Amino acid sequence: MEELKRRILKDAKVDEGDIIRVDMFLNHCIDPVLMRDIGATLAQRFRTERITKVLTVESSGIAVACFTALALGVPAVYAKKFQTGYIDPDVYSAEVHSFSLEKAYTMRVARRYLDRDDRVLLVDDILASGQATLGLIEIVSKAGAEVAGVGVPIEKAMKDGGHVLRRMGIRVESLVTVERVENGTILLTDGL
Amino acid sequence: MEELKRRILKDAKVDEGDIIRVDMFLNHCIDPVLMRDIGATLAQRFRTERITKVLTVESSGIAVACFTALALGVPAVYAKKFQTGYIDPDVYSAEVHSFSLEKAYTMRVARRYLDRDDRVLLVDDILASGQATLGLIEIVSKAGAEVAGVGVPIEKAMKDGGHVLRRMGIRVESLVTVERVENGTILLTDGL
Repeated sequence: MEELKRRILKDAKVDEGDIIRVDMFLNHCIDPVLMRDIGATLAQRFRTERITKVLTVESSGIAVACFTALALGVPAVYAKKFQTGYIDPDVYSAEVHSFSLEKAYTMRVARRYLDRDDRVLLVDDILASGQATLGLIEIVSKAGAEVAGVGVPIEKAMKDGGHVLRRMGIRVESLVTVERVENGTILLTDGL
Repeated sequence: MEELKRRILKDAKVDEGDIIRVDMFLNHCIDPVLMRDIGATLAQRFRTERITKVLTVESSGIAVACFTALALGVPAVYAKKFQTGYIDPDVYSAEVHSFSLEKAYTMRVARRYLDRDDRVLLVDDILASGQATLGLIEIVSKAGAEVAGVGVPIEKAMKDGGHVLRRMGIRVESLVTVERVENGTILLTDGL
């Protein structure tokens, strides 16, 4: 996706520890036109997969999920990871270790929003270690539903989430792959 | 907005303490077509206000903000209320009391995403006590920017958030107003 590549190379910032910041267009501040196009492109890649739900986890996956679900014509569901507001007591849950939080948390999806007839597309803003996605897979599995694939705008190839998921036989579609960070410069897999 | 009224009367659930649950189409599970139409309708109401940013707070305001911002052709920004992932240390912040959390939390917006030239539309999924919106107003004010208005799909008239904001001279647009809950039945201001 050329526009996303262009924005990463133009705007993304590299912080200490080779952390790539895309909060100026993808999370925190969102470019809704770019996000709509990301959703449409992910939907296009999975258009033959008979997706019935798009599932993500709050908060940064919600925008991707909404626009992907809109383009696919199915509902978006987001797993809750914070104890706020009303939470249905009847949930599927998974314990997830977060490297950014440096602790474990519980993600929850109300049982009523997943059932065994669902073919679920999992989305998020960035695929790195894949822990959040593995948590979503556990939840889909507990519901007896099927994971149809994983779609993300950005995959970090220097983390092993993508490899782990593909070795599990899961189709993973990333619109842009960051190969590595070298001296503060972001290198994409197929450049621009 | 007739479709939203219809969905509330058809699908919303009333729980103990007259809590109205709209998690089956507005938060947790999102109907993206309805959400797109909500965003387009809010954008239409503020189309002459020269909005430059749409601001909300994670998580349940994000979908409303994205679709409203898309229709207005401006960026969406969401205040962070959870300590996850990267947070810019250079932020505007506000302390907010949450009635649903029964505690206070800090919301933060990176300074780079608000400046004194901004005319900001504040959105959320539901306007009740208005505490989150008052926190966003404090943040906009700290940035020297201007609040152009508040837009929500659902306002609860039995809570005083809408009254407080209007008394402050702020334009508040709600697509549907819930007047009260009576014996487990949701009554809308102008019915259907």
